[in-house]
Amino acid sequence: MTSKPSPTPAPKPPLRIGIAGLGTVGAGVMKLLRENAALIRARAGRELVVTAVSARDRTRDRGVDLTGVAWCDTPEELATHPDVDVVAELIGGAEGAARLTVTRALENRRPVVTANKALIAIHGAELACTAQAADVPLMFEAAVAGGIPAIKTVREGLAADRILKIGGILNGTCNYILSVMHETGRDFAEILADAQKLGYAEADPSTDVDGIDTAHKLAILAGLAFGRPVVFASVYIEGIRRIGALDLQFARKMGYRIKLLGIARQHENGIEARVHPCLVPQDASIAQVNGVFNAVVAEGAFVGRLMLEGRGAGEGPTATAVCADLIDIARGAAIPVWGCDADSLTQAVALPAKSFVGEYYLRLNVEDRPGVIADITAVLRDNGVSLRSMLQHADAHETRPDGTHAVPLVLLTHKTNEAAMQHALHHIAELAAVLDEPALIRIDAG
Amino acid sequence: MTSKPSPTPAPKPPLRIGIAGLGTVGAGVMKLLRENAALIRARAGRELVVTAVSARDRTRDRGVDLTGVAWCDTPEELATHPDVDVVAELIGGAEGAARLTVTRALENRRPVVTANKALIAIHGAELACTAQAADVPLMFEAAVAGGIPAIKTVREGLAADRILKIGGILNGTCNYILSVMHETGRDFAEILADAQKLGYAEADPSTDVDGIDTAHKLAILAGLAFGRPVVFASVYIEGIRRIGALDLQFARKMGYRIKLLGIARQHENGIEARVHPCLVPQDASIAQVNGVFNAVVAEGAFVGRLMLEGRGAGEGPTATAVCADLIDIARGAAIPVWGCDADSLTQAVALPAKSFVGEYYLRLNVEDRPGVIADITAVLRDNGVSLRSMLQHADAHETRPDGTHAVPLVLLTHKTNEAAMQHALHHIAELAAVLDEPALIRIDAG
Repeated sequence: MTSKPSPTPAPKPPLRIGIAGLGTVGAGVMKLLRENAALIRARAGRELVVTAVSARDRTRDRGVDLTGVAWCDTPEELATHPDVDVVAELIGGAEGAARLTVTRALENRRPVVTANKALIAIHGAELACTAQAADVPLMFEAAVAGGIPAIKTVREGLAADRILKIGGILNGTCNYILSVMHETGRDFAEILADAQKLGYAEADPSTDVDGIDTAHKLAILAGLAFGRPVVFASVYIEGIRRIGALDLQFARKMGYRIKLLGIARQHENGIEARVHPCLVPQDASIAQVNGVFNAVVAEGAFVGRLMLEGRGAGEGPTATAVCADLIDIARGAAIPVWGCDADSLTQAVALPAKSFVGEYYLRLNVEDRPGVIADITAVLRDNGVSLRSMLQHADAHETRPDGTHAVPLVLLTHKTNEAAMQHALHHIAELAAVLDEPALIRIDAG
Repeated sequence: MTSKPSPTPAPKPPLRIGIAGLGTVGAGVMKLLRENAALIRARAGRELVVTAVSARDRTRDRGVDLTGVAWCDTPEELATHPDVDVVAELIGGAEGAARLTVTRALENRRPVVTANKALIAIHGAELACTAQAADVPLMFEAAVAGGIPAIKTVREGLAADRILKIGGILNGTCNYILSVMHETGRDFAEILADAQKLGYAEADPSTDVDGIDTAHKLAILAGLAFGRPVVFASVYIEGIRRIGALDLQFARKMGYRIKLLGIARQHENGIEARVHPCLVPQDASIAQVNGVFNAVVAEGAFVGRLMLEGRGAGEGPTATAVCADLIDIARGAAIPVWGCDADSLTQAVALPAKSFVGEYYLRLNVEDRPGVIADITAVLRDNGVSLRSMLQHADAHETRPDGTHAVPLVLLTHKTNEAAMQHALHHIAELAAVLDEPALIRIDAG
């Protein structure tokens, strides 16, 4: 037998796409599909055309031509439109129109592509059953880390390996704020205000800066990595509002950067899933990921450590991810939603925070008089917390209105468990010489 | 309609794998398939079992139990064995048994997974036609950057985007040698000898240190990124043998690291594909990728810049990549070999080196007397090469047996084209005051 050209098969019909939501991402998807139409047709083996759209406001100019595209007044109408083969849900939000669109589309046996992290993090287990019952794919590459193919890497690239750890820098807004705090020494509130002006932060920034967005993405990654959706409410979440300029100064002096990380690990007794600021060693590769960039870190038993770095948000990267999913569907790919059979799935409740083990950074503002350090270290000793190093910041010495001399003091611990650390912290905060609320930041290599 | 559990479908039969070649990777694949059997079955939706193997020496102990596995005396027998559904070619080499195994398997309508970069880089266009004629997949995730899902990222993750640039650090041996040279200041030959003892370099290191392995991988990435296999013989290749300890010292002083990079770019007039040592700015993320780690960098018009970092070789990472391909096949994935229809493919001849444009580092050993620098800079000026900075290394001053005082001199240029630079270099080398052969290293941000 010799190789010969295959007989030309009948060309596949176009894949007809309905887009629900015409914000930045929805408009970006339309632009990308049009600008790269020839290239996408060659790679997908068929044309990808947008045949219907729905959005709240029909009159708004979105910079994309909607001629010849059906307008649906409700997402539900779009989900069941006769000229739609696959629905791209780009509305956002865990409930309401987004959830309804996805559910209706799946029930009507239409494949769904979504960029909606909240929806998948919270209702992903249920939607996986709906998708499997209808035997259609539900894809969400754009839900995690924008242009980084994180979902594909975990669900397909690492499908043969036992994943031990997954996470990373999953929110560009927080990483931008912390990067600028590090570079300029300025305070959180000022930089947040600037980021809002630049469009790097929302008018209501809480989903980002309080760690919720990171937690949505982490829950999805952990669910894929460990083969079980994680109950979102059980993820430990702490944001970056309480990180002060002083913490970044101390961190730098001690050879660290501060990053908001999502970290999930598989343990024998369950899954650990947590989001909080971290001191990471400044020579760790994740410490070099700055500005609005994201980084996804995975560690497998066979593959070792992988890090994927790229733009985590924005029109171009997110649209690229949505369209990659659409091309996969056009090519006939059919990967189960969580990488394995949905019927056998039970959701995992993440381990409680008190079971965490790690090193800690503790910053106190203390009265500058003899005996204070002895009192503090005694509390640590009594709780079995072992001290690794200590640093005082003499420049930040301050005399308070009542005449007290206050000075910041930073302690780094060896590995200890969170329950012991929290217990010690509680008692330290009660010491008379400890003047303000202590700041506790975990240390992790990312 | 409400979601309900799907009726239990009949379980799919096991995917029966024939492994050709039982070296480190072949044995690693068997170990991984067995150790993670339950997990792989859940993710693939069926069992993956090795039913037949072939290797040169039947008696060698490879640390894997071959009980119940058919032994084939030739790879050809394996490729056509009745109990084999898919063939994993792990022999290596662009010709001989490897090429024969892959060709025969495809001709017999068996999907093929290979880790063989030379085979795909050199014969990939032809094999794509064979695979397409037989309508079976040919997968090669393990051929590029080991455990990093580079192929999947380019062929699927970035399928919607127009890729402008692809490349990176693709050879762990070279990166290890250059990293140790940077850390220790020692010479290439010494560190190569150490790396050979540690198993990081082959007894015959030329494929690695002369850049050929990097070029194989780059040609594959470029072919996928730009939708056309690149004629391998047209890739520009330069290895790391001529990088001296002095170059690393100068690079460090001027804020650079030296890395062996593969770089491919899409231009209007063709594809640029080149492998050579590069000065990269020390704060660039690729400069932080050290030791045996690889990094794949991709830049897309919509997605921006992506970097994937991980282990590029070794039993675990390579086996993970081979098994990911096997799982994709078990799941029914069918992506065209080069990401698009093979019949329409024409191979691309890469642009000649003289068309490159970039900045250059030029190290000369010159006679230490007035007028020398004027002579050199005049040659550069006459060739239209503009100088960015200049550095002399007074410590390395040397008096030669003939009484000449020699001193190293480093020049960095602004952007210029390679033809002009090579012309200038030729004339500079002929100046009487230039004592040894000049060292020219390109500068690139990676």
